[in-house]
Amino acid sequence: MKIVIAPDSFKGSLSAIEAAEAMNRGVKRAVPDAETVLLPVADGGEGTLETLVAATGGIRKSVTVTGPLGNKAAAEYGILGDNETCVIEMASASGLALVSQKELNPLITTTFGTGELIKHALDDGYRSFILAVGGSATNDGGAGMLQALGLKILDQQNQELSFGGGELARVRKIDISGFDQRVKQSKFLIASDVQNPLIGPDGASSVFGPQKGATPEDVTLLDKCLSHWADKVEEVTSIHLHDRPGAGAAGGIGGAFQAFFPSEMKRGIDVVIQYTGLFKLLPNTDLVISGEGQVDFQTASGKTPMGVAQAAKSLEIPTIIMAGSVGTGIEVLYQFGIVSVNSIINQPMKLSDAIENASLLLERSTEQVVRTYFHSQIIKKQEVLQYEN
Amino acid sequence: MKIVIAPDSFKGSLSAIEAAEAMNRGVKRAVPDAETVLLPVADGGEGTLETLVAATGGIRKSVTVTGPLGNKAAAEYGILGDNETCVIEMASASGLALVSQKELNPLITTTFGTGELIKHALDDGYRSFILAVGGSATNDGGAGMLQALGLKILDQQNQELSFGGGELARVRKIDISGFDQRVKQSKFLIASDVQNPLIGPDGASSVFGPQKGATPEDVTLLDKCLSHWADKVEEVTSIHLHDRPGAGAAGGIGGAFQAFFPSEMKRGIDVVIQYTGLFKLLPNTDLVISGEGQVDFQTASGKTPMGVAQAAKSLEIPTIIMAGSVGTGIEVLYQFGIVSVNSIINQPMKLSDAIENASLLLERSTEQVVRTYFHSQIIKKQEVLQYEN
Repeated sequence: MKIVIAPDSFKGSLSAIEAAEAMNRGVKRAVPDAETVLLPVADGGEGTLETLVAATGGIRKSVTVTGPLGNKAAAEYGILGDNETCVIEMASASGLALVSQKELNPLITTTFGTGELIKHALDDGYRSFILAVGGSATNDGGAGMLQALGLKILDQQNQELSFGGGELARVRKIDISGFDQRVKQSKFLIASDVQNPLIGPDGASSVFGPQKGATPEDVTLLDKCLSHWADKVEEVTSIHLHDRPGAGAAGGIGGAFQAFFPSEMKRGIDVVIQYTGLFKLLPNTDLVISGEGQVDFQTASGKTPMGVAQAAKSLEIPTIIMAGSVGTGIEVLYQFGIVSVNSIINQPMKLSDAIENASLLLERSTEQVVRTYFHSQIIKKQEVLQYEN
Repeated sequence: MKIVIAPDSFKGSLSAIEAAEAMNRGVKRAVPDAETVLLPVADGGEGTLETLVAATGGIRKSVTVTGPLGNKAAAEYGILGDNETCVIEMASASGLALVSQKELNPLITTTFGTGELIKHALDDGYRSFILAVGGSATNDGGAGMLQALGLKILDQQNQELSFGGGELARVRKIDISGFDQRVKQSKFLIASDVQNPLIGPDGASSVFGPQKGATPEDVTLLDKCLSHWADKVEEVTSIHLHDRPGAGAAGGIGGAFQAFFPSEMKRGIDVVIQYTGLFKLLPNTDLVISGEGQVDFQTASGKTPMGVAQAAKSLEIPTIIMAGSVGTGIEVLYQFGIVSVNSIINQPMKLSDAIENASLLLERSTEQVVRTYFHSQIIKKQEVLQYEN
C-alpha cells in the first residue's frame, strides 16, 4: 500500500513539512506497513521556496536587501536541486509579514528588495527563475524591482523616483538603457493565481490594496498612479498593461514581468507540482492525502489540495483532504477526485488550543480517516492479531 | 448497500432519534441509494424509555408521582410494542434532572416515585418490567420504592420512616406483610452497568454519592445508613446485600431489587439491543454507524457505541463511531470491530456553538466519513456522472 502525503502548511500552526510529518505518523498508526512518500507542497504563496528547496534537495541563500519600507531586511532565495533553477519568494523581501499592521501603507512600500534578490542570483550566475509573488505588501507596479535592476524611472526634474505606489503619478520618463542585460538572457516563471488586470475595479489597487493597508482614498489614488505608470510603460515597451490579465498580480509586479522580463505566468500550484516532481511519485499510489489550514469552496480555485487532487485524479488516484477548518461548499471539490474533507478538530475548542495542538490533532484525525478508508485491510488484520493472542 | 444507524443521544444537543436522523441525512448525501435502517439506542440510562418505545412502536403513559424531594412530579412509563413489557426509567420519577443543583441532597431524596410508577403499571395489569436505573438523585437503598409498594419500614416508635438515605440509620424493623403481592408474580429486568457493592469504599455512597450532592461527611453517614439498612434487609430476607455486586446500583436500589423482586440485572446496552431487535436488523448490513456526545476510553465499558459494535462484530459487520468530542484512549475500541471514531466538529468552536449546530455538524461529518468508507463506489459513480454531462 502506497500513500503520498502532500499537504500545504496549516497557516499559523504547522509548516507544510510539519503537517506532512504529522500525517505520516497518523498513517503509520493506522497502517504500520504502509509505504509513505512525504511531499510537502505550497500553492505559490508563502512556503513555496521552502517547499521546492526541500522537495528537490536544494539550498537556501541568505542575503540582505531593502525591505518594503526602505529599511534593511534579511531575506533569502533558494536554489533547486538541479543547481540551475532559482526560487525567489517575493514575500521574503517585500512581504506583508515584514511590516507591522500599523505601518502597512502601499503608498510607500517598495518591491526594491525583490529586485535585489534577482540581482544577487544573477550575480551568482543563475538565469532560470521561479518567482512566487504571493503575500506582497506593495502596490508599486514592480517599479522598485525594476529600479534595483537598473531601470531609471525619472520625474519632471529628471530625478530618480522614490519608493512606493504613491510616487508613480510623478513618472515622466522611463529610461531602459541601464536595465540589467542579464534579465533578457534569463527566463522567469511567475507562480501566481491572480488573473486580475492592472487597473480598474478589478485591478491590483481595488482588489488587493485594502489588505495591504490602503484606505478607500488610497485605493483611488493608487489606481490612478498605476494607470499613469502603465501609460509610461507602454511608451517604452508598446505593451498595454492596463487591462492585461495577470498584470495586477502582487501590486502590479505581474505587469512589470510581462513588460520587461522574458516571463511566463502559471498557476502557483502547477508550478509547485511541476518542480516537486509529484507526477513522478504518483504511479502505483493507492491514496493521496493533502490538506491545509482552511478548506472551503474557495479551495476549488487553485489552492494546494485542489491542485494535488487534480494531479492525482489524472492518474485515477483518489485524494483525501485534512483541514483545520472545513468551511461550506466543499461539495464542489468532489468532482476533482477528492473523496472527503475532514477536520482535525476532535472536540469543541478555542482556535488557540487548535493551533497549539495542531500536530497531534492532525496525526490523530489522519489515523481515523486512514482507518476508515482502508477499513477492509484493517479489520482483517485485527482478526488475525486476535487469533495470535 | 445497507447501513444500520444506531446512535445514542448526543447529550445536551440531540436525542438518539435526532442523531439518527442527522446521520441518515449525511449517509444519503454520500450514497443516495443506500438502504438505511434507523435504530436510535441508549445504554440503559436516560433515553432508554424513549428508545425502546420508539423502536418497538410502543406507547408512553403520563402519571403524577412523588418526586425526589417529596414534591409532586410529572413522570411517565412506557409500554413496548409487544403490549406486555413495561419500561420504567428511574430518572423519570427520581432523577437528577428533577432536582436543582442547589437542592441535590441524597440524605433526603427518595425513590418513592419509582415505586409509584411500578404500582401504576401493576394496576394497569403489567407484570413484565424493564427498569432503567441510570441518572438517579437518590441514595436511599430503594427504601422509598419499597414503601410505595407497601413495605413498612418502621423506626423505634413504630412509625413509618421518612424519605431519604439519611433516615436509614433509624430503621428498627421491616414489615413485609403489606408488600404488593403482584411484585412476586412479575419479572424485573434491571438495566444497569454498575457492579458496585452496596457499601464500603466501592459502594453506592462513596462512588456515586458525591455526584448526587453528598459532601465527604454525607458520604460517611450515607454509607453507615446503607450498612444498617442492609443488616435489616438481611433480617427479613436472609440476603446479604452489603458486598453483593450490583447492589450499589442507583443509590442502592439495585440491592432492593435483588432482595425483594424477582429480578435479573443486565448491562444496559444489552437490554436495549435485545428489546430493540438490533440483531434481527443486522443480517446483510454493510456498515453500522453509532455514536454519542462523548467517546473515549470509558466507552469501552458498556456504553452504547461499544455495545452496538460488539453486536455488529459478532456478525462480522464493522462499526463507525461519530462523536461530539473524541477523547483519549479510543484505541481500546478497535478490537471490538470499531473502524474509527470521528468528531462532528469541523473547526475550532465553542461548546455552545457545537451544541446549537449539532444536527448539521453530525450530518456533514457523517457524509464525509461515509464517503471515505465507501470511496470506491463513490468515485466510480462520479466518473459515470461526468461521462453523462
